[in-house]
Amino acid sequence: MAPPITPRAALYGQYILGARNRLLVAPAAPSLVSLYGAVPRLRNALVLGISQSGRSPDVVGVIEESRRQGALTAAITNDPSSELALAADHLIALEAGPELAVAATKTYLAEIAVLAMLSAALSGDEASEEQLRALPAALRASLETEAEVAKLAQARAGDGECAILARGFHYATAREWALKLKELAYVFADPYSAADFQHGPIALVHPGLSVLGVATTGPALSGMTEILNRVREGRARLLVLSDDAAVCRLGDGVLLPNVPEWLSPLVAIIPAQLFAYHLARARGLDTEAPRNISKVTRTL
Amino acid sequence: MAPPITPRAALYGQYILGARNRLLVAPAAPSLVSLYGAVPRLRNALVLGISQSGRSPDVVGVIEESRRQGALTAAITNDPSSELALAADHLIALEAGPELAVAATKTYLAEIAVLAMLSAALSGDEASEEQLRALPAALRASLETEAEVAKLAQARAGDGECAILARGFHYATAREWALKLKELAYVFADPYSAADFQHGPIALVHPGLSVLGVATTGPALSGMTEILNRVREGRARLLVLSDDAAVCRLGDGVLLPNVPEWLSPLVAIIPAQLFAYHLARARGLDTEAPRNISKVTRTL
Repeated sequence: MAPPITPRAALYGQYILGARNRLLVAPAAPSLVSLYGAVPRLRNALVLGISQSGRSPDVVGVIEESRRQGALTAAITNDPSSELALAADHLIALEAGPELAVAATKTYLAEIAVLAMLSAALSGDEASEEQLRALPAALRASLETEAEVAKLAQARAGDGECAILARGFHYATAREWALKLKELAYVFADPYSAADFQHGPIALVHPGLSVLGVATTGPALSGMTEILNRVREGRARLLVLSDDAAVCRLGDGVLLPNVPEWLSPLVAIIPAQLFAYHLARARGLDTEAPRNISKVTRTL
Repeated sequence: MAPPITPRAALYGQYILGARNRLLVAPAAPSLVSLYGAVPRLRNALVLGISQSGRSPDVVGVIEESRRQGALTAAITNDPSSELALAADHLIALEAGPELAVAATKTYLAEIAVLAMLSAALSGDEASEEQLRALPAALRASLETEAEVAKLAQARAGDGECAILARGFHYATAREWALKLKELAYVFADPYSAADFQHGPIALVHPGLSVLGVATTGPALSGMTEILNRVREGRARLLVLSDDAAVCRLGDGVLLPNVPEWLSPLVAIIPAQLFAYHLARARGLDTEAPRNISKVTRTL
């Protein structure tokens, strides 16, 4: 399956390049090109096209038009011979091996890893490079949560809907988690920036509602803890992914390995994706044959 | 209540200024400023701050920092004496009268109307000005759908969750409709770009699922019709807002007055908001006292 037209990885890219590199990042809204032929003026812009398969016609269209305007273009893709790779000035290959799963998981991780590396390279900061080198060990530790995550998923096999709360760097995590829960486990999973959630959708909270939270050490943690406490007061059933043991104890908790905040989406997404996988299995569903989805991409 | 930190009106602004004025529009991600003190370099940018109350500290923070950098700033707000109005170089007052409702409705309409007027003014196109002048009559016609909308809402009073599908200009409509359904009627309403929906979340479709669609005449209509047909084949219970009688007949339909596509979000949001209102009433809820929401804005 080709990735959705608005990859969640781009949300991470928007945040990390803004927070760490002070770049203004605009989503391309590919339908502006495909439906209206309206490409913004992109003088002096770097245009990144992200597509696991490299075959998303809308993403290819934006890159082609951007190059025509003289913008600098780069493709982030898992297929170095794809149309997207060939259309861009530069190729950043994911090198994740063939994506065999219907629901892409490892290529999401590879995409955000590439964006983190890009941010580090742009900053030229040696400390960031060192933090990146420590990442593989943290990812291995994150994979070791699987047995615990599987147990939590089995306990929630009956859940029909849930809200997912995160903020800042983890908004992308919430969106990716929600998508996997929807396409694999058919759970109505609604991802929120915690800031938006408290201004309206918090009305949805009622005793027993399943709420999933992602909250790791950094400037967003205190606000996240506050909203998770409010949700808990509303007697929602909370599951939290955190590298902070006290925050984990706000509900069912999965303790994440501690990494710098900008890299935390890489370690957090692993138990999140595993949770979706085990929830689907606990519900007797086939993760390689989701309802209504074919491997063939149809474009509207 | 202050508006959520990511106003849906900004999504309309992003689309209309992109499609009609070829401007690259980036969301400001206010938490970048409030949590990380990271403001992108905004040389030569116009920075628009949208806040009904003008009291959102995050939006005010972005405008203040942008002005410090020498960017051109404008406030779109309903309170001309608010902090936001005072912080910006220019004030575009909504002049909608005091927003008395807990869930802002008329100020959403006023915000997108102002963005449409801004787009028309930037293009300097006389035909657009004329189309704007015809708008009040169309809005009146849209208000006249209320009795019919109330009936449809009563028929769906038992709905627990729904997907809302739209594309292009109407993605903002879907987001605003979903928010109103959540905060007033406690419906798990999930808004989608129709393009994203078919790449995964379509797995959620099952017989009886409530699906709401917004599809008006323009380049997005044929793709929207195709996906609504697929949803219908999955035997979902479809409700469609459209200015096309044949598209309305794909499910329960509300016929919208015909206006140019770029103005269609203004006429479409009225029956959408009325539907949320009547659904809340049909469920015995008080639209002026939603659960867990206070009028006092708390910032994370």
